[in-house]
Amino acid sequence: MSHTPQGSLYLVPTPLDFGCEPQGAICDVLPQETLRIAAATTHWITENAKSTRAFLKRVDGVLPLAQPLQQQTITELPREVHKKGDHDGQFDAKPLLVAALRGQHIGLVSEAGMPAVADPGSSVVRAAHDLGLQVVPLVGPVSLLLALAASGLNGQNFAFVGYLPQDAAARSKRLRELEALALKTGQTQLFIETPYRNAALWEALLHSLQGATRVARASGLTLPSMSVQCRSVQAWKQTAGVVSGEPTVFAIGK
Amino acid sequence: MSHTPQGSLYLVPTPLDFGCEPQGAICDVLPQETLRIAAATTHWITENAKSTRAFLKRVDGVLPLAQPLQQQTITELPREVHKKGDHDGQFDAKPLLVAALRGQHIGLVSEAGMPAVADPGSSVVRAAHDLGLQVVPLVGPVSLLLALAASGLNGQNFAFVGYLPQDAAARSKRLRELEALALKTGQTQLFIETPYRNAALWEALLHSLQGATRVARASGLTLPSMSVQCRSVQAWKQTAGVVSGEPTVFAIGK
Repeated sequence: MSHTPQGSLYLVPTPLDFGCEPQGAICDVLPQETLRIAAATTHWITENAKSTRAFLKRVDGVLPLAQPLQQQTITELPREVHKKGDHDGQFDAKPLLVAALRGQHIGLVSEAGMPAVADPGSSVVRAAHDLGLQVVPLVGPVSLLLALAASGLNGQNFAFVGYLPQDAAARSKRLRELEALALKTGQTQLFIETPYRNAALWEALLHSLQGATRVARASGLTLPSMSVQCRSVQAWKQTAGVVSGEPTVFAIGK
Repeated sequence: MSHTPQGSLYLVPTPLDFGCEPQGAICDVLPQETLRIAAATTHWITENAKSTRAFLKRVDGVLPLAQPLQQQTITELPREVHKKGDHDGQFDAKPLLVAALRGQHIGLVSEAGMPAVADPGSSVVRAAHDLGLQVVPLVGPVSLLLALAASGLNGQNFAFVGYLPQDAAARSKRLRELEALALKTGQTQLFIETPYRNAALWEALLHSLQGATRVARASGLTLPSMSVQCRSVQAWKQTAGVVSGEPTVFAIGK
């Protein structure tokens, strides 16, 4: 009895300079193996087909694609999945993976960074496990982890909690909860915000937290504009620092 | 008035195949910029000087080092810091960074993966911020994040809690606490164990947790032996799977 080997699901990280001008060299943030697999893959599942084509054009610039871009199969996740997240188990991504059952390798990508980490994609990975497919995560930039390492806050116990509430009172309450958790357990608390709300979040941080609590903010990771700083709330209040309008990772710790 | 520019603290990730035979190509897991900075750096702070020299020999194989290995300055963290962790703020690493105040760039490395994430180094990063040095995290493999992405568990809310207690009763209690947290809040709980205790931890997991709880285990990340699987406790009980004796990341989620 012959048996077609199944394809793998590759988790393909992308550079963090999505939407930036100019963009750096892709080889500076993606190692050879990641580039090789990206160039060889012809079936994709993504948040956004346009950004995936832009990514593949950059890959093609350093390693020729196995198939012209127009002939590749790029399937977008449904909008409700990539906007609201897909970790509640409601979305069944198995139909997206039928090609893998016929032996086709499939790549999962997001707009920037690692798919399925602070980004959609976990429903696809879950479906791959349910189908018994091999799941292969590839090396590339992950903004949360670069921010955590560079913060100097506890990297041996940490949590990423996603976005904070938009309502001012609820946001301050949540910030104080995260601070209490960080101070009590030593667990660093990381979170993100939609860039245009960075300034409001930053104000809330400085006004809601205790003076001795350490706060880190990291933006422009892997880019020329990179900035990672970590100070006590008290010390932050003495600097006239303006928070970046770029995607920023924030962290609270002891 | 002239002013010597300060050096930066680079966080230099290393391959995850520490202690493995044979080892893969370093270019497959470290991008160009990471290799370039590793090759150009001549002052290092590390958990272990021997493994740092072995790493630099591999870098030299693809990009000549700026200075022969024997002439590089490699400073080990005190043993109590790299064994017990350095996140409690007791260890003052500022004296290790004096060369940076004179303009020298310094690299921070651990034995495998990203320094200061599930590994020592945060005291050095904290000291760099206190001295006003620029901290630059570089791209490379981070086993926790590769495991999380490939688990299919919630990557939009997750925590890494380090090691579990060694005592059997305390370990089961902790596992049930982590399960309760994961089920209540949807926050994926990641943890690690010293490899020779993997089998005992695995037994405890299958016996302490509820049948519907999902458990992932990931080992051999970035290596030919890679395995990442995620199933319900119930489904795991039906497989005669043996847990790997390699470094493994475990995760519990909904």
